[in-house]
Formats: sequence, C-alpha cells, structure tokens
Amino acid sequence: MNEDVARTVAEIGYFTEDNSVETVNARMGPSVDPRLGKVMACLVKHLHAFAREAELTQDEWEYAVGFLTRTGQICTQERQEFILLSDTLGLSMLVDAINNRRPKGATENTVFGPFHVEGAPVRAMGDAISFDGKGESCLFGGRVTDLKGRPVEGARIDVWSDNADGYYDVQQPDIQPKWNNRGVFITGADGHYSFVGIKPVSYPIPDDGPVGDMLAHLGRHPYRPAHMHYMIRAEGFQKLVTHTFVEGDPYLVSDAVFGVKRTLVAPFARVDDGGETMWRSDFDFVLARPDETR
Amino acid sequence: MNEDVARTVAEIGYFTEDNSVETVNARMGPSVDPRLGKVMACLVKHLHAFAREAELTQDEWEYAVGFLTRTGQICTQERQEFILLSDTLGLSMLVDAINNRRPKGATENTVFGPFHVEGAPVRAMGDAISFDGKGESCLFGGRVTDLKGRPVEGARIDVWSDNADGYYDVQQPDIQPKWNNRGVFITGADGHYSFVGIKPVSYPIPDDGPVGDMLAHLGRHPYRPAHMHYMIRAEGFQKLVTHTFVEGDPYLVSDAVFGVKRTLVAPFARVDDGGETMWRSDFDFVLARPDETR
Repeated sequence: MNEDVARTVAEIGYFTEDNSVETVNARMGPSVDPRLGKVMACLVKHLHAFAREAELTQDEWEYAVGFLTRTGQICTQERQEFILLSDTLGLSMLVDAINNRRPKGATENTVFGPFHVEGAPVRAMGDAISFDGKGESCLFGGRVTDLKGRPVEGARIDVWSDNADGYYDVQQPDIQPKWNNRGVFITGADGHYSFVGIKPVSYPIPDDGPVGDMLAHLGRHPYRPAHMHYMIRAEGFQKLVTHTFVEGDPYLVSDAVFGVKRTLVAPFARVDDGGETMWRSDFDFVLARPDETR
Repeated sequence: MNEDVARTVAEIGYFTEDNSVETVNARMGPSVDPRLGKVMACLVKHLHAFAREAELTQDEWEYAVGFLTRTGQICTQERQEFILLSDTLGLSMLVDAINNRRPKGATENTVFGPFHVEGAPVRAMGDAISFDGKGESCLFGGRVTDLKGRPVEGARIDVWSDNADGYYDVQQPDIQPKWNNRGVFITGADGHYSFVGIKPVSYPIPDDGPVGDMLAHLGRHPYRPAHMHYMIRAEGFQKLVTHTFVEGDPYLVSDAVFGVKRTLVAPFARVDDGGETMWRSDFDFVLARPDETR
C-alpha cells in the first residue's frame, strides 16, 4: 500500500473541508426512516454548500447561533417567530408552491398565515361577518366552480380578515367581538357565495423581534398588502388555501412574506348607488380535483 | 406588447416557484451592508435549493418549525443547543476548516467547543492540572515550533479537559475543584512544554434535547472520543485551536461532532517505570504565520 492509499484508508470517517457532506451523511445508521434520511442528507448538502460559498466566518457563525437562539426564545403560544423567519425568507411560499401545483385556470394557493381559527360560525349567504362597526363595508361575492366552470355545490368557504385597525380578532380578544371578520359559508347548487365584510387594510407583521431586526438590516419593510383569507374545502377537490388582495394596494409588489400572486389580485369597486356597502369585490374560485396537477 | 411580455412585466416582484430566489433577494434595499447582503442572498439560494430538491412537504416544514423552536427554547446560559445542532450536522467543523486553511505540516485546527474558560491559572512547566484525585495520570509534553521546526518562545498554551467521569469542571461547579484539569503554560526559548494531567475519557454530548432526538432518529450515538483541548497563541502566529485525541479510542471514527483529524490522534504510551504517571503523551504543535495559508 503506498502512502496515498494508506492515507485514504486511514482517513475514512475523518472529516475534511472537501468531504464534509459525505462524512456527515455516511454517519447515518442503517435503519433510518428512508424519507428522514433523504431530507437530512439533502439539508446537510445544501447547508454545507451555503457555508462554503459564503465562506462563512467564525464571527458570522456565532451571530447566526445567537440569532436563531433569540428567534426560538421569543416564541410563545401566540407568537411564532420561526414561521415569520420562514415567511420573510420566502421559504413558506416556496413550500406552499411545491405542494400545490395546479393547472392553469385553477385558483392559486398562498400562505395560510397564523391567524386562522377553526370553528367559526356557519352563516347564511349574504350575511355580515364584521361586527365592530369599523371600516369601509364591502360586499364580497362570486362563484366556486371546477376547472370547466361548473358550479361546485357544498363547498365550505372559510373566510377571515383583519379589522380596520389591521388586527385580527384573536390579536385583540378584549377589544374585538368574538368571530369578528370571520365566517363559514356553504355553497348551494349554483356555487354562488356572498357576504358583507370590510375592505381589509394592510398591516405590518410583528417586527419587534429578531425577524424585525433582520428586515431592518436588509432595508425591507414589514408590511403585508391588504387581503382577505379564504380556505375552501369541497369533497372531491383539492383544498384551496388562498387570499384575495386589494387591487391598488401600495404593498402588492413588496409583500413582506411574498404571498401575492398576480391572479389573486381582486377588483374592489366603489359602489355609488346609495346601497348599504361602500365597496364591492367579485372573485370566482376555481377548484382542482386531486388528479388535476401540473 | 404581446401577452407573454405583458405577463412578465406584470409579474415583476411577484413570487413564483421558479423565481423564488431572485424575488426574495431583489427585495433587499439599496444600502444594505455588502457582506450581509452577500451572505443572506447566498443563504436564501441554498435554503430554497434544499426545499426544492427535498420537495419538502407542509408537514415536514411544520415539524422543522417546531424542532427549531424547541432547540431555541432549551438554550440557557449553560446550554447552547444550536451549537450542538451545528456541531452534529458538521457545520461547525466546516466553518472551522474554511477559516483555518493551513499549509501541510502546520497543526490542524478543530472545534473550540463550549467548555473553555478564559482566565485559567498560569502554571510552571511540569505542574499538575488535575486536582480531584480521579483518573489515570498522564505526562503531556512536546514542543511548539514554527513550520521550519524552530522553537516558538512565549507561546501561551491554554489546556483543558474533562475529568475521569467525563465532565468539565464548569459542568460540576459543586463537585470539582475550581480550574480542575485546566492550566496555562508559557514556553521558554526551547519551545518545550510539559504538564501532568489525566488521560481524558470519551463522553456523550448532552442528548436529552432536540439534538439528542435527532441523533437517535438518525441512528447515531452522541459520544465524543477522548481528547485534550488546546488553544495556543503566540505573537506573529495564527491562533491554533485544536484537540489531541487518544489513540485507540473507539469513537475516533464516529465522533458525534466530526472533530477528529488523522493528524491530531496522539500516542498515549503506558509508562511502566515506576514513576509518578501511568501514561505519557508526546505531541508537537506547529504554528503557522498569518501569511502561511493554503
């Protein structure tokens, strides 16, 4: 055995700058769950590629350790800073996109967000969802159809939004009425829906923690453009989690969490007919069946 | 403007699965610190590449958010779980390698570890560092030289190790004497050093938290092979942070934090001459000057 071969043999299992990925991943045991093994090997590969390409310094590594620690330590039952971090780095939207590839014509998904609450009241079509007397009233309406434009009956439309001050009811439990700006509507045979809410307003994500610091250092603002949340479930169709965004909002092209898609920008028309609502927003939702993907 | 061009123009700033990296990185402001901008752009690129290659599911993303949150929340003044995570994924060693590229012949770096304490007593050559009466005594000795074998005078050798039970003094402040198995030695004109400690023992990294869970799921043990820590500083030379590892240790090729390098495995010879120590370990340290890199 010449010296080079001897050296190679002796170094099996020893970490070097060049073999770092292989050495770490070779350490996994033989009975690791295959999916876990695949995801972790992929993580190590890209994590090391990052450190290598950035030529990360020791000080930067220490800063990152401190940043991640602070991010974990600010989390509470009501605040999830790692979700904010994922959102503001575009990871949440990417994972959403990867898991919701739909054919052209189907309504696109966007991020779920942290403010949905299961169990909102089922209301009758045309009912109000806003009960704090604030904001500019808006009639929302449209149809739920399949890709061929046929109405979907029995679609369960779960809708939620912030109030005129930019807060969801769960953020102000002592101020807002329970289930303010929330409701569930179930379509009939015609697939139509309608309800009266308010024209939502843009608001900042919580920016008094590590993620807010990061945004400030990156020269980014923390605002989300005004949007209505929808989750639509119907038997035989893919679940749709999406928003509609208020046309003309100044943050449409700079959403702090990258949630906007062009097809989700909805018209908000001023109503000047002396009726009950100041605005009207029409939007049709197109559901895809489980096998309808791209 | 044809439809494709119009669509492209309209989508500037909107996130898609394909343009995710560019969209996120284009959001940075114009006056971002150049190094921060470079590191963050690189992070986003590799983070997205990971999610894309792994086709990360929504459930896996949620698990990761929970895992990172638990990792942050178990951290205290005495415990740094994110460092353990970095260590066990090989990231710490990679960053160490990137930042300490030395020419052949210079002693290699390895991870600093969390147990160094600044301010250990300066002792005379040949002095003891172990004061709890436990373990197998060992005489450590050798030389500190430059790459040409010339002795380095005034090198400050900071040494620390666990005790025979596998704990550092700072982990057992009520049990071990202060500065147990620690000391600082300063070389004279001949570059020699020597001190009496114990033959160190292998020990597990803390494995009762998220990182321990991860290791268990990956079929990995939490042990580090027995090692002595050294930090050697001398004017006109690169700082050397390293270990020597006990020859023959069963964990040499499976160190939980990947710290072992072949050149750092030191001989530990049994002494049968009726002297004061049971073992003897000789190891020469070779320092590189700041401009001596590869």
